[in-house]
Amino acid sequence: MHLETPENKSALSEINGINQPDSISDAVAKQIQQFRRKQPSANELITRIIKGDKIALSRAITLIESTNIKHLEKANEVIQGCLPYANNSVRIGITGVPGVGKSTFIEAFGKHLTSLGKKVAVLAVDPSSSISHGSILGDKTRMEELVKDENAFIRPSASGDSLGGVARKTREAIILCEACGFDTIIIETVGVGQSETAVHSMVDFFLLLKIAGAGDELQGIKRGIMEMADTIVINKADGDNISKAKLAKTEFNRALHLFPAKKSGWIPKVTTCSAITKEGINDVWKIISDYFDLAKENQYFQNKRQEQNQFWMMETINEQLKTHFYNHPDIISLLEQNKKAVQNNEISPFAAAKILLENYYK
Amino acid sequence: MHLETPENKSALSEINGINQPDSISDAVAKQIQQFRRKQPSANELITRIIKGDKIALSRAITLIESTNIKHLEKANEVIQGCLPYANNSVRIGITGVPGVGKSTFIEAFGKHLTSLGKKVAVLAVDPSSSISHGSILGDKTRMEELVKDENAFIRPSASGDSLGGVARKTREAIILCEACGFDTIIIETVGVGQSETAVHSMVDFFLLLKIAGAGDELQGIKRGIMEMADTIVINKADGDNISKAKLAKTEFNRALHLFPAKKSGWIPKVTTCSAITKEGINDVWKIISDYFDLAKENQYFQNKRQEQNQFWMMETINEQLKTHFYNHPDIISLLEQNKKAVQNNEISPFAAAKILLENYYK
Repeated sequence: MHLETPENKSALSEINGINQPDSISDAVAKQIQQFRRKQPSANELITRIIKGDKIALSRAITLIESTNIKHLEKANEVIQGCLPYANNSVRIGITGVPGVGKSTFIEAFGKHLTSLGKKVAVLAVDPSSSISHGSILGDKTRMEELVKDENAFIRPSASGDSLGGVARKTREAIILCEACGFDTIIIETVGVGQSETAVHSMVDFFLLLKIAGAGDELQGIKRGIMEMADTIVINKADGDNISKAKLAKTEFNRALHLFPAKKSGWIPKVTTCSAITKEGINDVWKIISDYFDLAKENQYFQNKRQEQNQFWMMETINEQLKTHFYNHPDIISLLEQNKKAVQNNEISPFAAAKILLENYYK
Repeated sequence: MHLETPENKSALSEINGINQPDSISDAVAKQIQQFRRKQPSANELITRIIKGDKIALSRAITLIESTNIKHLEKANEVIQGCLPYANNSVRIGITGVPGVGKSTFIEAFGKHLTSLGKKVAVLAVDPSSSISHGSILGDKTRMEELVKDENAFIRPSASGDSLGGVARKTREAIILCEACGFDTIIIETVGVGQSETAVHSMVDFFLLLKIAGAGDELQGIKRGIMEMADTIVINKADGDNISKAKLAKTEFNRALHLFPAKKSGWIPKVTTCSAITKEGINDVWKIISDYFDLAKENQYFQNKRQEQNQFWMMETINEQLKTHFYNHPDIISLLEQNKKAVQNNEISPFAAAKILLENYYK
């Protein structure tokens, strides 16, 4: 039994089912190609990842992202082998609607972190990327400085049909990045749809990026994103924008007080910064550090990670139960019949469900 | 196979597993007792319900609410028999936080409807009632006039462990009420938690009851309840409150415009009323009638009901798939083991899910 059906007809070549990552430079591309030719075993990959080898890390994430069943099994082996070396990190989710300057912010923030001696991995959850082939983090030139940084690793969003699948792959990639020695994991997502909730369930800290006067304040409240935020950072606080950003800070601070207190005991902070002038970037990290001091001290950090692990186990099970049912050969045509009967009020929804379930379990 | 595990050890008596409804009066109680002694068959119940017999209706709803497996089968038979006579109604959901005067409003509104010749059934979805034994609609004396009305039927919320179970029972009770000739079904729910979403998925029209200056405006937005509302009715617009209520009306009207347009093509209306003086109650019905004219004309009404039926079929299936898995003898202890292993980072959540699923499907 496996969690995903391979779409590839042939399982002979490991190339099948893999979206090739963009090469960073010709030299690196050659290294990757050489490494690939060697067809490293799961054990080789694990050994190299633990040593901090970014090429092996890239290669293993590619295995995770593959829809080829052979790759899936190998990927699971690699994850299991990396697991004892994972978990020593802080995981930060960053969201914001298009236009708030997420890429520029992550570049400035990431560079600040590597200047403090940290190793930074940037991953993304973007379910729309299966259509647009990576609308976020896809254009790596937007993070030119960070890409070149020895202590940074940037990976675009996995593609996939469902948010669940994309999120699972990212969640697994976190483990590999941590085993590879990355101590600060940044998960980027776009401020649309349900992807924030998925990211929220895999990070320790959630950062909402905003700009002053965008008029999307109410939308943030509506979708509950503001309620999830541990900090709101108002970006583009430079030049003529500074006074507007300060005003927005006051407004968001007031709005945040209307939400119930957080279980972590943390009071969400609002701050301003400019990813261009770098003004305020250090304050963002100061806020995040303060949060981790508090949450590790009161055990919330540790407890939340345990809860998240259980959540992902249950989510995976619940998703798979549905996949198995709705793709079962005995169910597919029976489901269509019953859907029609329910539509025409010939049978109650509950009686129809009962018939389908009885056929499934018999 | 059955949809719920009976908690009763003996299935010998039909009294087991049934929460006895409060008797409306001693005379009615005696009638019910006599009727119960007769142990009517499913066919008898169907025949009597279709004739408009409220005692048979009560009795059948009690069967639906029972956790006794014998009752469940009989209940399903009754529902199936009533189905061809159901569906000729309008279903109105009413929500509002405690203190907005839901009971008084529903009494005044219900009396207005019966005065127009309508037959009104009032049901409730209140998952908290399993603890408090009916915090809403439980105290029937609060609807004294409507209870005595020949053309009204009032039933407190079913109790149950889960919102899903309570909601399903109410959803089934709607079918019986409709078969019994009730053309206007009101579903009451409290303005807390997820019960609004459940009610929204079983009604044609959603009414949000408010009072002026309660300070819960933002909370309504936060939970998306305001977004679900087809009308906001500001109650207690009497005496000194009238000007405050008018002000609130303007504010809510402005807030509603910030939400995206409804698929029904309907523009949500805000109105004021007093359940005490009856002022404005007829306007509420006018708004609802206008909505139904529009939604039936543009087929939204019919399409939404079909969608809702399918939704309930799928929901029932998805819930049952989980119930079956998590209660499976092979899974229970294995799940505990894997939960612990996941907590201690000995296994990834995904590998643990895989082990559990392999054991389940083998």
